[in-house]
Amino acid sequence: MAKEKGITVTKENNLSEWYTEVVQKAEMADYSKIKGFMIIRPNAYSIWEKIQNSFNKYLKEKNIRNAYFPLLIPESFFKKEAEHAKGFEPELAWIEKAKNEEGERLAIRPTSETIIYDSYSKWIRSWRDLPFRLNQWCNVLRWEVKQTKPFLRTREFLWQEGHCVYETKEDCDKEVWEILNEYKRTCEELLAVPVLTGIKTRAEKFAGAHYTATVEALMPDGKALQMGTSHNLGQGFAKAFGIKFKDKNEKMVTPWQSSWGISTRLIGSVILTHGDDKGLVLPPKVAENQVVIVPILFKKKEKGILKKAREIEKKFLDVGAFVDDREEYSAGWKFNEWEMKGIPIRIELGPKDLEKKQVVVVRRDTGDKEIVKESELKTKIPKVLEDIQKNLFKKAEKFLKGNIKKTKNWNEFSKIIKNRQMALVPFCEEINCEDSIKEKTQGATSRLIEKENKEDKCINCKKKAKYWVYFAKNY
Amino acid sequence: MAKEKGITVTKENNLSEWYTEVVQKAEMADYSKIKGFMIIRPNAYSIWEKIQNSFNKYLKEKNIRNAYFPLLIPESFFKKEAEHAKGFEPELAWIEKAKNEEGERLAIRPTSETIIYDSYSKWIRSWRDLPFRLNQWCNVLRWEVKQTKPFLRTREFLWQEGHCVYETKEDCDKEVWEILNEYKRTCEELLAVPVLTGIKTRAEKFAGAHYTATVEALMPDGKALQMGTSHNLGQGFAKAFGIKFKDKNEKMVTPWQSSWGISTRLIGSVILTHGDDKGLVLPPKVAENQVVIVPILFKKKEKGILKKAREIEKKFLDVGAFVDDREEYSAGWKFNEWEMKGIPIRIELGPKDLEKKQVVVVRRDTGDKEIVKESELKTKIPKVLEDIQKNLFKKAEKFLKGNIKKTKNWNEFSKIIKNRQMALVPFCEEINCEDSIKEKTQGATSRLIEKENKEDKCINCKKKAKYWVYFAKNY
Repeated sequence: MAKEKGITVTKENNLSEWYTEVVQKAEMADYSKIKGFMIIRPNAYSIWEKIQNSFNKYLKEKNIRNAYFPLLIPESFFKKEAEHAKGFEPELAWIEKAKNEEGERLAIRPTSETIIYDSYSKWIRSWRDLPFRLNQWCNVLRWEVKQTKPFLRTREFLWQEGHCVYETKEDCDKEVWEILNEYKRTCEELLAVPVLTGIKTRAEKFAGAHYTATVEALMPDGKALQMGTSHNLGQGFAKAFGIKFKDKNEKMVTPWQSSWGISTRLIGSVILTHGDDKGLVLPPKVAENQVVIVPILFKKKEKGILKKAREIEKKFLDVGAFVDDREEYSAGWKFNEWEMKGIPIRIELGPKDLEKKQVVVVRRDTGDKEIVKESELKTKIPKVLEDIQKNLFKKAEKFLKGNIKKTKNWNEFSKIIKNRQMALVPFCEEINCEDSIKEKTQGATSRLIEKENKEDKCINCKKKAKYWVYFAKNY
Repeated sequence: MAKEKGITVTKENNLSEWYTEVVQKAEMADYSKIKGFMIIRPNAYSIWEKIQNSFNKYLKEKNIRNAYFPLLIPESFFKKEAEHAKGFEPELAWIEKAKNEEGERLAIRPTSETIIYDSYSKWIRSWRDLPFRLNQWCNVLRWEVKQTKPFLRTREFLWQEGHCVYETKEDCDKEVWEILNEYKRTCEELLAVPVLTGIKTRAEKFAGAHYTATVEALMPDGKALQMGTSHNLGQGFAKAFGIKFKDKNEKMVTPWQSSWGISTRLIGSVILTHGDDKGLVLPPKVAENQVVIVPILFKKKEKGILKKAREIEKKFLDVGAFVDDREEYSAGWKFNEWEMKGIPIRIELGPKDLEKKQVVVVRRDTGDKEIVKESELKTKIPKVLEDIQKNLFKKAEKFLKGNIKKTKNWNEFSKIIKNRQMALVPFCEEINCEDSIKEKTQGATSRLIEKENKEDKCINCKKKAKYWVYFAKNY
């Protein structure tokens, strides 16, 4: 492994470079030989597994089952839903020569609505089959033209995509919001990243959707990050793919559909939100190892210290505690390494501590050190872990709340965006007007709708507003 | 959902058609619009999840971590290891137009040795980094020209691939066999499919490997199924990709490598091995729902029966018990459905049973019915589940042992293969001779080496034998 070195820039001065360094030095990801493709290393993949376990538990409770659909999608499937096709066409990667029986070209999935709904049209017959609900965990590929960045925007990423079919609009709406709520819970309780939830404007909704509900976070540079989306697809896909069912009155009816997803992008939000100038800071709930024990070895005392370190390790195996007993590195080197990698708690144990039956507990989030009696460790550690989880969330929440500014005035709006903050403004929801805002602010896009606003005038075009809408630059 | 219908052929008379029907009617998989690609439905995907959970637990104990490498591989990577390139070239799917920075074509991974070892050459520097061990769960794509069959041979499949680097040949050998043992355990203890283990002949080893250790099962039609492989890759890939490390004497040394994998093919072995003329038979350890409770509803007694059924359900939630309380289907229809889907135990509960505080317990494997007092259910069900698991394994083991025939005589060998059995014969291990055997027997290939044999003559060419080798036709 390359020699460990500290981060060479501060988070505040150069977030982009800081992020790149943390991603590589904390061994979260590495670049591949193909632009826009990344290698997800175990330190990051383990966070993905925590997200998977948490979400799979939720799916099981809701009785939504996992399945797996093919990687390749025939061209005609994309063309069935015109808006969807238009949205994804520029990003498709086609397979050379290989075609299906009908002689059609095949593309790698950018998302799986089309191939899944082709099957649904065969499987769904009656109201008895509804709601029909599947989820899949898979890789998808979108040939991005924008600048890519590990986790935040990559040409291939891992995600889950849920696809449901309902009898009525009401059933569909209900679950769209239930799923969005679970996404919010995942972000806030697991990742300690506070989020806003709401509906996207027409310009920003998913290609082919009736409406898109979204979970949005604000990163330290004032850019918004879309953390997950839950779409009410309406009946458009069902009509395009011929999904119909016999209702209780024996009438053939078109159902309503939803789809929803979160991706490995979430890992990027954890790095950006919590990290500091020493590297990664992991919320305990996503840390594979929540505690590292570093014995401070002096000659002749080594045996006793290592023995005690092992004893402590055994007590905290449930939170992935481990002893760093490598002989070839100094204690100071180890401190730096585990700080870089974001482990929530470090326990230091030297000869003096051994004598006094105590250890030093160091928090990664605040840097606070505390001497703790060995006898109190078993109650202390879980409390500190809980406190770190809460503290990280609170800090991020304070940042989010402190960086949303409400205004009805264009100049103020413009200043807010320049100040790298999020603005809440009256907006008409016209697509042209949204394009114009993007141009005039050099990149601010609508993130989500807060609520109705029929009183004010649109911040930009001065026509009648429809909503209060959050605007920010985004990843 | 299409109306449930029974299997229309017997397993004995037409295994191939029987398999196709069971796969579809038990809702294990469905065909997609692209030849050779299948949709893995929840009833099958849940088996894959059981395999994943079991194997992930093993990996965690061994401290082998999960990661994720890109789907696409640049052309030059394949070319670095000549034998590997030759082996996989015919099955590669290339991406149209898209190229990497160096202008190279990109292919979808058929396996990930090359892209992973490119990274390993950057990450591994010192003996301190060894053993270096990662695993990934992913999809791979091999553009098969042979006839495809759901689970058993598909152009895309899901698998895990482990990739390890060691200081010495001894370390490498040791782990190659440890992993193979875990594969054997997975097959036998989880899937109840007995297997043979050993080394592949040169003709059948993995493209680029030093040697390939394999886990082989025998299906009811006498065809062998390769269940998993663990390769000692030698130093070939390391040399091709420039993986080197500084040993304890500060000397630059080339390491040894292993790779190993099991796939969704295992699901096919479960269907083939245990299924019967009524459909799927699932070993309890891979059944998502090990118990189904079917209330037999008579008017006016419904409430009491359903209440009791729910009480029983609660007692067995840990084995995924559920009540089939659908009003629109008869009890008989439900019996057929859950037999088709292979649920290990059915509990029937009618008005008479309610009165007598008893239930009827029906085993899927034997069809045996037993009246069980309600008070004894809690101890009875786990015992029956254990017994089903054991019984399925024993039955399959008896079949395997009864269908291996040892001979030194060509005519007998030829008859064994014609009789759809597995033959154990003296063999010279020459590639030409193996090709000749395949031709003469219309498809028998060497499955694995049993042990040395320096006494006899080769079954085919009559030159000096090297080993006792198992031959069979295969999937």
